[in-house]
Amino acid sequence: MAEPFRVSRRVEFHETDMAGIVHFSNFFRWMEAAEVAFLRGRGLSVALPWEGQKIGFPRVSASCDYVRPVRFEDVVDVAVTVERVGRKSVTYRFEFSHGGEPVARGQVTSVCCRVSGGDKLESIDIPEGIRAKIV
Amino acid sequence: MAEPFRVSRRVEFHETDMAGIVHFSNFFRWMEAAEVAFLRGRGLSVALPWEGQKIGFPRVSASCDYVRPVRFEDVVDVAVTVERVGRKSVTYRFEFSHGGEPVARGQVTSVCCRVSGGDKLESIDIPEGIRAKIV
Amino acid sequence: MAEPFRVSRRVEFHETDMAGIVHFSNFFRWMEAAEVAFLRGRGLSVALPWEGQKIGFPRVSASCDYVRPVRFEDVVDVAVTVERVGRKSVTYRFEFSHGGEPVARGQVTSVCCRVSGGDKLESIDIPEGIRAKIV
Amino acid sequence: MAEPFRVSRRVEFHETDMAGIVHFSNFFRWMEAAEVAFLRGRGLSVALPWEGQKIGFPRVSASCDYVRPVRFEDVVDVAVTVERVGRKSVTYRFEFSHGGEPVARGQVTSVCCRVSGGDKLESIDIPEGIRAKIV
Repeated sequence: MAEPFRVSRRVEFHETDMAGIVHFSNFFRWMEAAEVAFLRGRGLSVALPWEGQKIGFPRVSASCDYVRPVRFEDVVDVAVTVERVGRKSVTYRFEFSHGGEPVARGQVTSVCCRVSGGDKLESIDIPEGIRAKIV
Repeated sequence: MAEPFRVSRRVEFHETDMAGIVHFSNFFRWMEAAEVAFLRGRGLSVALPWEGQKIGFPRVSASCDYVRPVRFEDVVDVAVTVERVGRKSVTYRFEFSHGGEPVARGQVTSVCCRVSGGDKLESIDIPEGIRAKIV
Repeated sequence: MAEPFRVSRRVEFHETDMAGIVHFSNFFRWMEAAEVAFLRGRGLSVALPWEGQKIGFPRVSASCDYVRPVRFEDVVDVAVTVERVGRKSVTYRFEFSHGGEPVARGQVTSVCCRVSGGDKLESIDIPEGIRAKIV
Repeated sequence: MAEPFRVSRRVEFHETDMAGIVHFSNFFRWMEAAEVAFLRGRGLSVALPWEGQKIGFPRVSASCDYVRPVRFEDVVDVAVTVERVGRKSVTYRFEFSHGGEPVARGQVTSVCCRVSGGDKLESIDIPEGIRAKIV
């Protein structure tokens, strides 16, 4: 099993809510940012030109379990693992921790799409060159 | 089976992303807003004083499956169903549609917490008076 | 002087921050949503097809003065006034109030742009047909 | 004149909008994050305990002028300058650039407040010990 890819981020003030903790929706933005950082490390992105086409990876499903609240200025570590690469989709697993303690666990499935006409999305097989960089 | 509770909202510009569609994270904010509207209709909230305590309902898990993209100015209808009321938690199901077509399906589990000292959270049994209003 | 255009919205939980009040950045999103609603009432939008072109109205400046905090579930009333229509730009003024009390005052200047090649922006004179609907 | 304090950040996907550029409201969140980083470098924060009180710095005014659009994955440099320290407030100036080119200029005035009873805000003179660290 490959080592997970890791990124860290510090909680910003606007990410908190009146309960004094990070709003749960922000973990999904953090998953996406971690996925983007993972792909960038491999010369890819969630929106990239590829052999004359525009390829995107919109999400088809996303989930998160929250274990402990995270607060303003906490540093959150995110470990990204490629859970599964299908014909058209990639599933990532995300482990969030703070100070070594788990705070949340998430999963996102992104599907490979051809983008045309500005914003038409059509799912396609992941191009072999992209697949080779992800697995 | 009770009829679902329904709310509608129109997609705002800031909710879109460069793919020209609503960013997937916003569906979680819409679920929360629909949950809040549902609770408000029953005299409750996700943050409320209750018999001298402050009660909150932070989320412990959330998930969403995306069926069709939604775009700027689209009106999105949200149907809220109480899926399950446990001893300490409530699970809601959300069906998102646009123009009668399903666009996403989500689920959120909120756990009843006593809020103390500003932002300490401790899970508690759902007070009977609150439970009676939810089911 | 024309009557201002008015919209209302209820503060959502994710719009609050750990200070227990609406995060100041959200007033800019509310200004935009009010501008969009104003334009929609006149058959326009901040992103619209126009005589074969794609026209957009990105912001070139925005400001807000905060008078009183606004909290979760407060209903905020927004009054929109067209302050000035220039050759290429429109300046809007926004008065935010809650329960009849002013809570904030903002101003936004949007510049008319032709959008080409997906996301190239070039400022242009406001087409006469659009101008006639705004003033 | 002191050198400005500098931070950088990379544009995240959720920060873009359907115009393919960073949504204008996000510059205000970046200003706040830069202000927080500036304060953290001096042992302060926008929300901090101070001699037995809770001190916060809510914004009383904020403005931004947009010069050039910024796009997904661009690295944005933010230079923070303390423009003015008043009796109760601090005004910051922010210069945003990308690849050495200016992209936006902003200004924020934060007022020193005592936070009590969870979320009551009362403006106070900036405590001398805090003032000494800011100027």
